Amino acid sequence: MDVKEYLKVRKEQVDAALESLLPVAGGTLTEHIKAMRYSLFAGGKRVRPILCLAAAEAIQDYDKSFPEPLLLTACALECIHTYSLIHDDLPAMDDDDLRRGKPTNHVVFGEAGAILAGDSLLSFAFELLSSNDFEIVHPAERLRVISLVSKAVGPEGMVGGQFLDLTHAGIEVTYDLLREIHSRKTGALITASIQAGAVLANCTPEQFKALSLFGNRIGLAFQIVDDLLNVEGTTEQLGKAAGSDVAMHKATYPALFGVEKTREKARDAVTQALDVLNGFDKRADMLRELAKYIVTRKK
Amino acid sequence: MDVKEYLKVRKEQVDAALESLLPVAGGTLTEHIKAMRYSLFAGGKRVRPILCLAAAEAIQDYDKSFPEPLLLTACALECIHTYSLIHDDLPAMDDDDLRRGKPTNHVVFGEAGAILAGDSLLSFAFELLSSNDFEIVHPAERLRVISLVSKAVGPEGMVGGQFLDLTHAGIEVTYDLLREIHSRKTGALITASIQAGAVLANCTPEQFKALSLFGNRIGLAFQIVDDLLNVEGTTEQLGKAAGSDVAMHKATYPALFGVEKTREKARDAVTQALDVLNGFDKRADMLRELAKYIVTRKK
Repeated sequence: MDVKEYLKVRKEQVDAALESLLPVAGGTLTEHIKAMRYSLFAGGKRVRPILCLAAAEAIQDYDKSFPEPLLLTACALECIHTYSLIHDDLPAMDDDDLRRGKPTNHVVFGEAGAILAGDSLLSFAFELLSSNDFEIVHPAERLRVISLVSKAVGPEGMVGGQFLDLTHAGIEVTYDLLREIHSRKTGALITASIQAGAVLANCTPEQFKALSLFGNRIGLAFQIVDDLLNVEGTTEQLGKAAGSDVAMHKATYPALFGVEKTREKARDAVTQALDVLNGFDKRADMLRELAKYIVTRKK
Repeated sequence: MDVKEYLKVRKEQVDAALESLLPVAGGTLTEHIKAMRYSLFAGGKRVRPILCLAAAEAIQDYDKSFPEPLLLTACALECIHTYSLIHDDLPAMDDDDLRRGKPTNHVVFGEAGAILAGDSLLSFAFELLSSNDFEIVHPAERLRVISLVSKAVGPEGMVGGQFLDLTHAGIEVTYDLLREIHSRKTGALITASIQAGAVLANCTPEQFKALSLFGNRIGLAFQIVDDLLNVEGTTEQLGKAAGSDVAMHKATYPALFGVEKTREKARDAVTQALDVLNGFDKRADMLRELAKYIVTRKK
């Protein structure tokens, strides 16, 4: 399987799992469930779930199907990512009307509807992470995953990053602060996604350490490329407003370093990520390909 | 210890634990942490944490201190409750300016600040529920608690309840729908608080079943009394706008049944709650007292 085929197959698996796991619209909560589903199925690339699965596959061979807790964890990561996008887009936050080529959640369901859809997706993610409808497998490992993920998305992680991003719009920021914003806002959840897959695949402490560092590096590369695409891409390509970072005077790599130097930094981060995987065998090949893919993607 | 003394002592324990667990304001996230702490330490009664602890005490004897996972769980429940209040008060939701006698979170920290403070408190609650800084104790039980709590506060629980409450303001609702709104919005988390304490105290399946029903009944009583206080209390007593339910044309028990019949329904629910505890020994006495206290409280 090449990386594009891998992304396609895994995305389909994640989509199918999400479809079967999410509450079905019906009864009194119909509009609320619709709002959750609207953003969850708006064409996301499923980067975080796929990284989670690929990290697990870098350690263990899985036959055709993944164990239930792993698949549920992958889906939970996408629910969390989607919640963060819904809240980030709100009028009180980044005030974006367009996301993945579609009207944002609050444009369709109103502000209250969007806030609640995000809230539900976050809680629902923890339902998935802790679901024990099946026989409990490795509760200690699953508890550890919940600990890693919740830390990554809380005040010291993703929400803290969004807070910093928002409160520093229009202000010139130092490179240190830019790195802090990116690391919290994007890096933390990407790293936790990889860690989660590793933990559920019963990684060794050494593997955990290496994959954590790998996550850190590709999280950085991912955000740098996002910054670049926001400058260089068209609104049509991106499915969201191109140039919005410049318009909002947001702290970005291109603003601080220019486009060429920024490209170099993305490549460096990926090189470092690949170096970290030296001790891994060919099972980590797809993770290597995904790292390379991250800097070449066009949206 | 009488019930008032018990409430005072347990509240102090919960407050002290929360104080030591919450991130400390400092560095780049100062304003964000302040926003989280502002609402968390705004004078809440700590009903949910105290019910969690009392449920555990109904099953096991604890000496002077509670085990770490139990205390962390109690604190997590208060973080979740506080997050729900912050989001409910937002201009896009109930648009309340006053809560517990103080300006609401968004009045002080702005809308974006309040949304993010709520988001962080919810994630932070799951950090506490899954914290494994200490040696992992009973991971399967803790995972079960996370499952119970996350279900109680997600789309089918608390957030779903707030959605229904909001979308039916100004519309005459049936008794069935009123019960559904209350059960989701208030009952679910109160029941989960009691279930969490029971699970962490290693309850039997029979005890779990009984305490779940107990939670359901006092959750109902609690909400009925809340409705009554909103009609009868003064703004000063309540620390929030009295009569706001009537002004918003919200579905309430007094609106549907009148004050006298509503009072009777609250007493009935408590009687049913007490009946459920018949099989419990004197360790459940405080839980019994708390049930009675719920219908006599003045705020």
